[in-house]
Amino acid sequence: MSKLPVSPLARPFPVLSSVPGVRLASIEAGIRYVGRTDLVLMEFSPSTTVAGVFTQNKCPGAPIDWCRSILKQGKARGLLVNAGIANVFTGQAGLDAVKYSAEAAAKAIGCSTEEIFVASTGVIGEPLPYQKIVDNMPRLYQKLSENNWTETAQAILTTDTFPKGAVRYTHIGNVPVTLQGIAKGSGMIAPDMATMLSFVTTDALLSAEVLQNLLSEKVKTTFNCITVDSDTSTSDTLLLFATGKSNSPMVTDCHNPILRDFANALESLLKELALLVIRDGEGANKLINIEVKGAVTAKSAYNIAMSIGNSPLVKTAITGEDPNWGRIVMAVGKAGEPADRDRLSVAIGGIWVAQNGGVLRDYDVNAVTQHMKKDEIKITVDLALGNGSATIWSSNLTHGYIDINGSYLRT
Amino acid sequence: MSKLPVSPLARPFPVLSSVPGVRLASIEAGIRYVGRTDLVLMEFSPSTTVAGVFTQNKCPGAPIDWCRSILKQGKARGLLVNAGIANVFTGQAGLDAVKYSAEAAAKAIGCSTEEIFVASTGVIGEPLPYQKIVDNMPRLYQKLSENNWTETAQAILTTDTFPKGAVRYTHIGNVPVTLQGIAKGSGMIAPDMATMLSFVTTDALLSAEVLQNLLSEKVKTTFNCITVDSDTSTSDTLLLFATGKSNSPMVTDCHNPILRDFANALESLLKELALLVIRDGEGANKLINIEVKGAVTAKSAYNIAMSIGNSPLVKTAITGEDPNWGRIVMAVGKAGEPADRDRLSVAIGGIWVAQNGGVLRDYDVNAVTQHMKKDEIKITVDLALGNGSATIWSSNLTHGYIDINGSYLRT
Repeated sequence: MSKLPVSPLARPFPVLSSVPGVRLASIEAGIRYVGRTDLVLMEFSPSTTVAGVFTQNKCPGAPIDWCRSILKQGKARGLLVNAGIANVFTGQAGLDAVKYSAEAAAKAIGCSTEEIFVASTGVIGEPLPYQKIVDNMPRLYQKLSENNWTETAQAILTTDTFPKGAVRYTHIGNVPVTLQGIAKGSGMIAPDMATMLSFVTTDALLSAEVLQNLLSEKVKTTFNCITVDSDTSTSDTLLLFATGKSNSPMVTDCHNPILRDFANALESLLKELALLVIRDGEGANKLINIEVKGAVTAKSAYNIAMSIGNSPLVKTAITGEDPNWGRIVMAVGKAGEPADRDRLSVAIGGIWVAQNGGVLRDYDVNAVTQHMKKDEIKITVDLALGNGSATIWSSNLTHGYIDINGSYLRT
Repeated sequence: MSKLPVSPLARPFPVLSSVPGVRLASIEAGIRYVGRTDLVLMEFSPSTTVAGVFTQNKCPGAPIDWCRSILKQGKARGLLVNAGIANVFTGQAGLDAVKYSAEAAAKAIGCSTEEIFVASTGVIGEPLPYQKIVDNMPRLYQKLSENNWTETAQAILTTDTFPKGAVRYTHIGNVPVTLQGIAKGSGMIAPDMATMLSFVTTDALLSAEVLQNLLSEKVKTTFNCITVDSDTSTSDTLLLFATGKSNSPMVTDCHNPILRDFANALESLLKELALLVIRDGEGANKLINIEVKGAVTAKSAYNIAMSIGNSPLVKTAITGEDPNWGRIVMAVGKAGEPADRDRLSVAIGGIWVAQNGGVLRDYDVNAVTQHMKKDEIKITVDLALGNGSATIWSSNLTHGYIDINGSYLRT
């Protein structure tokens, strides 16, 4: 965890239980940071299935290549994560580092190397000193326990200012099932020191195919709907592991209605983790919720919402607590999606300030001004063209972002 | 002109001559600002042809609608510009304001209303007090002269910190021809107070079709290759007027080789004006030149260059004088264009720091560090995939940008 002040939007770490079939531990391996844990191992019971989604960045790190290559088997026995060095843009040395690290974890757990998932976060271009990982593996393995969730959530942080975890208790049929996960990230990306990583576990019994379908579906409305700075990491990784230890009925069809509550709980959990990442957005002190409706399609609504959420001018207006709907109109128009200026309406804090292409002269200015002072800002845009809608979350752009990413140089 | 300190990247205003067939003037009309000029009229001699390119924003201002509708006639007798109020998102009142303003100018000049082009820059959503324009028209018309270029360049400014103009002396056949223009803009956009406007005049004799072809072609490598903050204005306007007063030979085919020098001069002038806008980028103190080569197509190279130029993390790294090529790699990868991490090379200040997917361990760190201290930063990316290349210009992201756009609130 960084030495930055804790985000004003931070939330306390929740009370996490154990997830049957999952043991975990963290350790100080001295990979780059000093005086803090930086290496994590999770062990999953035999027959654990896995699903994953990864960054769409065309220059991904070696760990992403590795995870993608082994994901198709759908089986996992271990997860190895380090903070401090991202193992990105390191050529053959990066691939070797992944291989030797995964081999060491596989040897400790007693499984195939292809059942070990890896993730790294930190600086780009530096070689990962994998020998430290190999040497520390026996000690790390010895520390595995079902109850190390808080320490583990701490060990994966970089520029984050608080640890992030969430839990949901749900059921499949009549069998109680737990969904529990952790995340890190303080921006969609800051390749110097940050990346979005999230690892979720469950004791549900689900085929890898069902798991992947659920994850791919639910990521669309959660992690894919957040943005801090529009910069997509080279290392973003979201993995979902299912140990099957709950004795829930085996489900092999992702459309089986027995999965409805589980799927909703998964979406709710992913959303909580995603919002925690936004709450730790670099320099942020406002959480921005953007709802676009009336677009020609849902995809069009999403693109417009992201155009608003990524606009430096909208984000700085919110920093200034300025209900600047003109900048919102600009951001709608620049998205390149169908929009009719003269049908467009904008609400701030639920209050319509502009409607059908013009400002409303009699809206409650005082109520809007009060809303802008809050730490959660709500923007609604109605295009009045169709039924497409989308909701995304962003954070504001402040001097803190410049401080964190501009090497603390004041200009 | 704003009360902000003059940009450290500012250039002195050039010595401008007159352009035969062009008269111009500025006046204090009190539209929104006090104690400064804010209204401009240009008068063009009969038979003047015109070409224009406008914002691609889907929520354009009423002046954009008007200019687009009259442009197809290809004829212009006047240009009316105001600063302070953008006349955007003002519904029917906005259209009326344009009509009555243009009518007043047409009456003064003695031409059809459809020969008057208009542009407005300033706040969005406020009604344009066109009566002030109408009332001031006789006084403004009286002031018209061939030699008011400096005053006119001043009168159209908003958040700009210095006036912007450029001139080129070229020829068509053996006939000397002048190209002279002014611009304003301090960001691709800041809809509160800024917009990119540029007006260029020439005494060449060219059909409207030739003029439009030339302008549409040359804008691609000039004004369309700059970005301050990725936010596209609702009012961006670039107009090119040709009075024909030079007695240059009439050209009706834009591929006629007689036009080569003129076309080059036009591109050079547009590039100078575009770079002046970047030099006045809000809060900027570094001009960033980004060259991408080896892409699969020129369009792909352009998209990658813009992805780098718009990346908040690249822009803040440059503010911190940090040669952070990892962020450049990230920005290449997030562009969504074909890229092969393991063939990618990055140079800073002409020095290759990363090649074929890995950092170069023996590059001249000292030389790169020295380059980062300069106020003009050069980034080169070679994708090694094809022959597509593009060059764009951007500015860095500083505390000044947050100050200007975040209502001066320090967070």
